[in-house]
Amino acid sequence: MENLKVFACSESSEKFTEEICNYLQLEKGQIKRMKFKNDNNFVQILESVRDKDVFLIQSTQPPVNERIMELLITIDAVKRASAKRITVVLPYYIYSRSDKKDQPRIPVTAKLLAQLIEAAGANRVLTCDLHNKAIQAYFNINCDVLTAESLLEKYFDLKKIENKVVVATDAGSSKKAYKYAEHFGCPISLVDKRRDGNNDKAIASSVIGEIKDKNALIFDDEVDTAGSIMETIDVIKKFGARDIYVGCTHGVLSGPAIERIKNSEIKELVMTNTIPLTKEKQIDKITVVSISELFGEAIKRIHNETSIGELFETN
Amino acid sequence: MENLKVFACSESSEKFTEEICNYLQLEKGQIKRMKFKNDNNFVQILESVRDKDVFLIQSTQPPVNERIMELLITIDAVKRASAKRITVVLPYYIYSRSDKKDQPRIPVTAKLLAQLIEAAGANRVLTCDLHNKAIQAYFNINCDVLTAESLLEKYFDLKKIENKVVVATDAGSSKKAYKYAEHFGCPISLVDKRRDGNNDKAIASSVIGEIKDKNALIFDDEVDTAGSIMETIDVIKKFGARDIYVGCTHGVLSGPAIERIKNSEIKELVMTNTIPLTKEKQIDKITVVSISELFGEAIKRIHNETSIGELFETN
Amino acid sequence: MENLKVFACSESSEKFTEEICNYLQLEKGQIKRMKFKNDNNFVQILESVRDKDVFLIQSTQPPVNERIMELLITIDAVKRASAKRITVVLPYYIYSRSDKKDQPRIPVTAKLLAQLIEAAGANRVLTCDLHNKAIQAYFNINCDVLTAESLLEKYFDLKKIENKVVVATDAGSSKKAYKYAEHFGCPISLVDKRRDGNNDKAIASSVIGEIKDKNALIFDDEVDTAGSIMETIDVIKKFGARDIYVGCTHGVLSGPAIERIKNSEIKELVMTNTIPLTKEKQIDKITVVSISELFGEAIKRIHNETSIGELFETN
Amino acid sequence: MENLKVFACSESSEKFTEEICNYLQLEKGQIKRMKFKNDNNFVQILESVRDKDVFLIQSTQPPVNERIMELLITIDAVKRASAKRITVVLPYYIYSRSDKKDQPRIPVTAKLLAQLIEAAGANRVLTCDLHNKAIQAYFNINCDVLTAESLLEKYFDLKKIENKVVVATDAGSSKKAYKYAEHFGCPISLVDKRRDGNNDKAIASSVIGEIKDKNALIFDDEVDTAGSIMETIDVIKKFGARDIYVGCTHGVLSGPAIERIKNSEIKELVMTNTIPLTKEKQIDKITVVSISELFGEAIKRIHNETSIGELFETN
Amino acid sequence: MENLKVFACSESSEKFTEEICNYLQLEKGQIKRMKFKNDNNFVQILESVRDKDVFLIQSTQPPVNERIMELLITIDAVKRASAKRITVVLPYYIYSRSDKKDQPRIPVTAKLLAQLIEAAGANRVLTCDLHNKAIQAYFNINCDVLTAESLLEKYFDLKKIENKVVVATDAGSSKKAYKYAEHFGCPISLVDKRRDGNNDKAIASSVIGEIKDKNALIFDDEVDTAGSIMETIDVIKKFGARDIYVGCTHGVLSGPAIERIKNSEIKELVMTNTIPLTKEKQIDKITVVSISELFGEAIKRIHNETSIGELFETN
Amino acid sequence: MENLKVFACSESSEKFTEEICNYLQLEKGQIKRMKFKNDNNFVQILESVRDKDVFLIQSTQPPVNERIMELLITIDAVKRASAKRITVVLPYYIYSRSDKKDQPRIPVTAKLLAQLIEAAGANRVLTCDLHNKAIQAYFNINCDVLTAESLLEKYFDLKKIENKVVVATDAGSSKKAYKYAEHFGCPISLVDKRRDGNNDKAIASSVIGEIKDKNALIFDDEVDTAGSIMETIDVIKKFGARDIYVGCTHGVLSGPAIERIKNSEIKELVMTNTIPLTKEKQIDKITVVSISELFGEAIKRIHNETSIGELFETN
Repeated sequence: MENLKVFACSESSEKFTEEICNYLQLEKGQIKRMKFKNDNNFVQILESVRDKDVFLIQSTQPPVNERIMELLITIDAVKRASAKRITVVLPYYIYSRSDKKDQPRIPVTAKLLAQLIEAAGANRVLTCDLHNKAIQAYFNINCDVLTAESLLEKYFDLKKIENKVVVATDAGSSKKAYKYAEHFGCPISLVDKRRDGNNDKAIASSVIGEIKDKNALIFDDEVDTAGSIMETIDVIKKFGARDIYVGCTHGVLSGPAIERIKNSEIKELVMTNTIPLTKEKQIDKITVVSISELFGEAIKRIHNETSIGELFETN
Repeated sequence: MENLKVFACSESSEKFTEEICNYLQLEKGQIKRMKFKNDNNFVQILESVRDKDVFLIQSTQPPVNERIMELLITIDAVKRASAKRITVVLPYYIYSRSDKKDQPRIPVTAKLLAQLIEAAGANRVLTCDLHNKAIQAYFNINCDVLTAESLLEKYFDLKKIENKVVVATDAGSSKKAYKYAEHFGCPISLVDKRRDGNNDKAIASSVIGEIKDKNALIFDDEVDTAGSIMETIDVIKKFGARDIYVGCTHGVLSGPAIERIKNSEIKELVMTNTIPLTKEKQIDKITVVSISELFGEAIKRIHNETSIGELFETN
Repeated sequence: MENLKVFACSESSEKFTEEICNYLQLEKGQIKRMKFKNDNNFVQILESVRDKDVFLIQSTQPPVNERIMELLITIDAVKRASAKRITVVLPYYIYSRSDKKDQPRIPVTAKLLAQLIEAAGANRVLTCDLHNKAIQAYFNINCDVLTAESLLEKYFDLKKIENKVVVATDAGSSKKAYKYAEHFGCPISLVDKRRDGNNDKAIASSVIGEIKDKNALIFDDEVDTAGSIMETIDVIKKFGARDIYVGCTHGVLSGPAIERIKNSEIKELVMTNTIPLTKEKQIDKITVVSISELFGEAIKRIHNETSIGELFETN
Repeated sequence: MENLKVFACSESSEKFTEEICNYLQLEKGQIKRMKFKNDNNFVQILESVRDKDVFLIQSTQPPVNERIMELLITIDAVKRASAKRITVVLPYYIYSRSDKKDQPRIPVTAKLLAQLIEAAGANRVLTCDLHNKAIQAYFNINCDVLTAESLLEKYFDLKKIENKVVVATDAGSSKKAYKYAEHFGCPISLVDKRRDGNNDKAIASSVIGEIKDKNALIFDDEVDTAGSIMETIDVIKKFGARDIYVGCTHGVLSGPAIERIKNSEIKELVMTNTIPLTKEKQIDKITVVSISELFGEAIKRIHNETSIGELFETN
Repeated sequence: MENLKVFACSESSEKFTEEICNYLQLEKGQIKRMKFKNDNNFVQILESVRDKDVFLIQSTQPPVNERIMELLITIDAVKRASAKRITVVLPYYIYSRSDKKDQPRIPVTAKLLAQLIEAAGANRVLTCDLHNKAIQAYFNINCDVLTAESLLEKYFDLKKIENKVVVATDAGSSKKAYKYAEHFGCPISLVDKRRDGNNDKAIASSVIGEIKDKNALIFDDEVDTAGSIMETIDVIKKFGARDIYVGCTHGVLSGPAIERIKNSEIKELVMTNTIPLTKEKQIDKITVVSISELFGEAIKRIHNETSIGELFETN
Repeated sequence: MENLKVFACSESSEKFTEEICNYLQLEKGQIKRMKFKNDNNFVQILESVRDKDVFLIQSTQPPVNERIMELLITIDAVKRASAKRITVVLPYYIYSRSDKKDQPRIPVTAKLLAQLIEAAGANRVLTCDLHNKAIQAYFNINCDVLTAESLLEKYFDLKKIENKVVVATDAGSSKKAYKYAEHFGCPISLVDKRRDGNNDKAIASSVIGEIKDKNALIFDDEVDTAGSIMETIDVIKKFGARDIYVGCTHGVLSGPAIERIKNSEIKELVMTNTIPLTKEKQIDKITVVSISELFGEAIKRIHNETSIGELFETN
């Protein structure tokens, strides 16, 4: 493993990087990061990476554009330092919902991000639970996509919740809901929310499938403002649901999310640490399951050139 | 329009090309296509395209790989003939379901196809109702995506079917189902099919939502072997559905599809002509709505450099 | 000029864009910019740019990485909207001092920025007074570089300062100092600052050339923290200089700059508006000379495909 | 050799691949190939190729476009599976006669094929006896070209044919004829066929050089429809030639070729197995000399990074 | 034609450029070319080429590497000056015999040259009678290839030489010989030169076909040292040939060529001016037929975007 | 070191290559270089470089364009011979003063050269003391830049010259002058040359700083025609300077340089052998310090993938 080097691209990625390095029984790579007075970033790799297999870890909490530039500048430094291979590790792929041009004259920023990472000189990408699996092929370089699915399944299996139903919050997430329902061997139900086309406000909702007196599990790839989950919960509560659990890979939790969750009927929100949960967001209802070992194992396999296919079994 | 040239890349694309040219009040471009005895394709553009705005129409029915090579070779000929711009028109984007690497060591052929089209020298792409909208950004060149949605909606509006319900055949299509249900102002229902993980056979199914005595509308971007639709129909019939209509953009209708449809409880299958319906597939139950005018209009706007955003309004 | 479109890439670029548009007698391009709750940027071009000659103006005050991403995302949107040509206008080229690898394992961010702008899809660049003229050729696309030199010369000519001497703050700026001295027909003097190699602190300084009882003019391409200028002023004051004027193209003025200038012996700091001077930085000692007409004229010539060589005469 | 993997890209390439693997004492790589009902190809590499040195063998008999797409899709799958290097092995380079633009507005498909192979992600190419040696440099990646010359020479040396003359069928092949004549130390003769410019029909022919009572050897890189060889034989027979032997690398044998050869005065046609001779084409007059060991040896040397220059000595 | 600009890349290309400009009734483009004392080339385009259609003429007589660098540097200057399109005009494509890798570890300089021209920024190429037509497709940009064939045919038609025979000097040129023989309606004959493999010296020669008392016409794409032609002439003279004429497109005439021709039995050598015939090479036996009008016409058509296909009719 | 191969690209680079190989205790790579009669270069690598780490040494004395083409053609040969990595070693980077577009419509040849080297297929570059450090980032491949600074410093340290002053010949070199003055712990002085704008002739000069009775050291990255140094010497001599020493990395010494130096008041010119000093230029006043060991050491470290950062300490 002497040719393996793992660096954190930002202060906020240090903790996740540390967990990965612990798993790999490896010293974190030495790197200096600073901002000049004029707000320009500076980075210097403090140990030789010549001919090394370098992994750059970047957790992508806000300010996200800052995170992107930190990443790109670090890639440039490592590339010029003659690394053998540069693998960018993005536990959470930001801008992943900007994956199509569904209005006139808008960007497809998820694709742009892939282009920028390649332009800067990365050779591989490792990420997790993309909003749309097709994003993987936005890259011309190879991109491996991990999944937190089995972590979440294992967690809920251990809780032994009875009388479960998996609830899909909207059509987009129903495919994922199916898969979880099949794992748990439980039924599925769907919330049918109709919206007023003029202002996109929900105007009427009903539940399709049985929900009364059942314990509801809601899954999504990410929880952002938690707005759509709140609407779902309101409806299923009205229709008689009992305990409500939410599981997601990426806890974006932006804007009013924490306040909403705190005041909601959610019993527990289970998420991974692909995005670090800052102190002020740590509330009782939120459980964080660490995914760093999975990343550590993937990095080990990529470095050793052994198959990582079996890490995706459940996928 | 004197600088606009429209060519059919294969015999089987002639009809669609003709319809487009009629709409544009334009002569179809003169092109010679043949195969040598050794099965090598030959193509020659029979009129000058120097500095012209060239559109290459390729309908993509089987043999599909033949279609791809015909297209690529024609692009090469037009590029070497110094066309000003080459727009590839693929009414149906083949290999679009190969849009992600969801098993180890498989190709992402939808992305590969985009790379090949660019490598051959195309400057733009025009296509319709992609299986996954993210495919659009597989291209580095600009790609416009038309939709048959309003054509299908208009068709069913005129039929004035009462007591409608939109049925989603599986989780993947439920988002589309939502949108149609909103357009028609009718409820939605879902078929929950459980499969045996070992052999992928459906082992139990139920309907979520009301279906009894209702007229069912099933929508999908494409109907291929019609297998999954048949399963859906079996279930909803068992649960009491009345008339069953199916709408789709792309009538792939491969393998047993025609036989299945003929023998099924489907009252009418409505599709567009993005893939030409060969004579032996033309059965009473199938209605073809022409989308060639929409393509013609899009080509006109691309050529005239006027906005084509409004063609996508319903999208 | 109907095919010319000029957009501001950020709120903070609106004013400079407006001045340019006034010069061009043109409406500013309509654009919508916002941030989602998760800090992701969104941009939408609100008018057709199909086949248009688009100029994207981005003033680059902090947060600078935010500015870069705003720019890149806007380029992506305009490119996908089928603009004929995209010219990026960076009145101040940030990261321009990161133009070489003079320590081990550091980035060359000025080059990286050029690569990112090209990767996003820009076709030309227009900028001003680069820290190192070689940066121009970091681009593979064409890059025009304006200069504020004659603006500053004209301003000081009109002031009719007597008994002038041009002072070079350090070796790097002495070439520029020569040119100004030749314009004003006055002598030059140099401050010879010696530093302690261990901590880079100035340990001894002297003035080479006559300075006593003279009015000193100090020129630089940018004034950042104003630290090095302050050291210069301390020395020349000690050696008997009278009035002190500073001229620069880019008023970066970061960190303690304003406080330092306010408390210094500087009589007047003259700069252009390549970086907008925010309200809290507007102090009496600072005079802003507008360079927007020069940019407007350059844009006009690029659009009309007439020579812009003569705009650089003094360069 | 544990890092060497050799795969057949199609059913019809299995035999040639097997022979190569036998020579290399290696298991053939495990690969799954199938077609979906909609005629879309699917391929899955069934063993890890991560960091492996992969060779993809594709024999290119008709349908040739199918062969090309099979190859490209397999390259894509192997590339995404993180192979260290991908070498495409094309025993016969199809479309090699489409190597120049000698009519207006035609493609140069031999170059296009090179571009497609590179776009898909191949790193090297290995092929044999190109119709035009310049095709090698159509690739930007390295391309090695084997030759069957010494195999054919050895074969005819052993036959000890007396009173030989090498006959060039037309001007294009006379250079090759010279080289064989020099090897066999025998004279050369040429058939001078004149054609009617309007319909390209041979209108008069004569033989230049001695042919009467001599045993004729005719060589070509490929025998396709055998049309031109038949014309040659008619002429030389009329002028008194005795036994007629034909030697070629690539037995394309398309259209009427087999019928023609069967009914002709050819005593023996000697060819290699760069294109597999299907059962129905196996007639007594045709002798197949295996070239698979030469390919096996070249693959071994490429893999071991030893010189392959000496394999081309006779070239 | 106001947007058409034609420049000579070197002093030695001035004459050919002038002839082209005369045909086009156009002023030659103003350009300054010089060498600094340190042997570095400098070039400056002295008139605006912004948005112009620029043709760069470069005749390629020795020193040829100097010619290449002059060309590349001029392309760079024109590209940075924002020309709309840059067409490189190489009347003679140097290094065209280095078109394949037929020995181990040698370059394919004809391909390299194509890559350099593209890397420098050219958009099109116009050249004439390539040694191997496949070189055309070494370019990814479009490349038109003119031919001097009809010029030479016309010249010899007017001479009304009787009792003609076209003689192929070696196998490589026999294809071309056929075509001329067909045009003149005369027979063909071949010189069969055998060489000693060890030292490549001709050791025995004979003529295949009738030559006695006939007037011989020998054609080649270029005459370089004239060595191989001299060998041919020696043989056919020995076998009784009468008057000997040589025709070629490119008069390279290097080393002992002029001396050899002067002392030979050649009656007349007819060539074009693709390479300028320097004064000291102008001898009585050499006739130069100007091809500049053909180039002028091709440039006109490329500029006007009209078909140039018919210029190649005889090709 | 068995995988390390070092070749000289030209006769004139043989000596420098030999010195490097001696340091590395390595046989010089076998290579054949010749010119055909038609002035076309030919090169053949005479030993296998398959999978080798190849360094191509090219000293760049005039004719410089010849040197560039020799280099590019050798790169092509080595690339096609399947080298593992190709590092171009340019002790002196020619055209380095053509690093910006400071007049209308001129090339930036230093950037063009970088593009050509990359287009030909190089993977790394190693050079020394660039005229502008930003040139390093003209390359997209990695480029290491050595410096002769400490060699020159060591040389002058040993001379123990008393009463030193470092003189900057013009503004451009004053930064370098500062650094040397700091090393030697001596003062600096500047020559202020004013020029007539119309003809660029020096019209008046003065010295800024003390010079009388001091021994002057003048440093520059290169000495070309020595014109500007002569002007400097004239001035400082007039103002009383004593002994005059000149130090530079690159002894270009073109045109009248040697004559000027011989006749000048220069006591000693110290330079390295980045450009070989031809016999006729070897005069007593010139001392050559060899830099080949530094290059040898850098090559060793690049090959062994150990850090080369410390070789640049003084930089």
